[in-house]
Amino acid sequence: MDKHLQKPKIHKIETVARSRLFNVESVDLEFSNGARRIYERMQPSGREAVMIVPVIDDHIILIREYAVGIEDYELGFPKGLIDPGEDILEAANRELMEEVGFGARRMEILTKLTLAPSYFSSKMNIVVAQNLYPQRRQGDEPEPLPQVRWPIAEMMKLLNEPDFREARNVSALFLAHAWLLQR
Amino acid sequence: MDKHLQKPKIHKIETVARSRLFNVESVDLEFSNGARRIYERMQPSGREAVMIVPVIDDHIILIREYAVGIEDYELGFPKGLIDPGEDILEAANRELMEEVGFGARRMEILTKLTLAPSYFSSKMNIVVAQNLYPQRRQGDEPEPLPQVRWPIAEMMKLLNEPDFREARNVSALFLAHAWLLQR
Repeated sequence: MDKHLQKPKIHKIETVARSRLFNVESVDLEFSNGARRIYERMQPSGREAVMIVPVIDDHIILIREYAVGIEDYELGFPKGLIDPGEDILEAANRELMEEVGFGARRMEILTKLTLAPSYFSSKMNIVVAQNLYPQRRQGDEPEPLPQVRWPIAEMMKLLNEPDFREARNVSALFLAHAWLLQR
Repeated sequence: MDKHLQKPKIHKIETVARSRLFNVESVDLEFSNGARRIYERMQPSGREAVMIVPVIDDHIILIREYAVGIEDYELGFPKGLIDPGEDILEAANRELMEEVGFGARRMEILTKLTLAPSYFSSKMNIVVAQNLYPQRRQGDEPEPLPQVRWPIAEMMKLLNEPDFREARNVSALFLAHAWLLQR
């Protein structure tokens, strides 16, 4: 397969808009065929994130969290940014304690996903957490996150739930399902 | 399952940053327990997108496209925004013609995915395209998109490719695989 594509040359990167959370950059690009484009993207932050599929008693645990982009609650797996100094599994365990009230004695990283890489640099590490024990840590959630325990035997039926629709959640479901089947 | 969560009350929505492509809004929210937060999100556009899994001769077709967010090429399925006046399948067929050089006589919508709904309203419709015929339409790509034909029989091995990492592509791969297996 052709892995030797010649990357465009970046002539200039400029910040064109800035808010508390977002920095929008314009990137002046010249493709190898001479085509010139100005693209916009979010400034790469370098911080990765984790999404955790917690397994307990033949069930997986999901949460319902308010998502202001769609002004509705979404069903999905606990997740969050990796803090400076944390590694992937430390962050996964902390988020699990904050959002679900469990720690995990066994965790495995399944993969690292990107998200609309034409605009964002963000990377999401998918982690399966097993051998859970009750352990609550205070997070910054504005309200408690309702939990759902879903039987592993019927895991793929989650795809029929109208509020289980997020691409990283859907990917994590399939990846965790394949991983659990192999065990 | 608790589907009756009481949504936060939105007190105020303000544009806080604006560029050519992006409008950042701040949203002043009050959760049902009284907690108050100011969140930021991208202004909802109402425009959905399509991602197409094209099937030809026991293979699926993928493309390599430059993604400025990660400053690298990504392997994935053709995709694009639905234009005003188009329905999902019209847009899917147009994007297929522009990015891959085929039209499709048979298409089926598998699902609609969201993408980081805490920040974005975007919806991506996943479409399988079959019964392809050569038909090229001019798109706005800066350079030709190299194509890869991948055997359906080894479809899931795409997960081992380091440049096949995008959450919507991974979801579309699993969904199309499950759909094709049922046929």
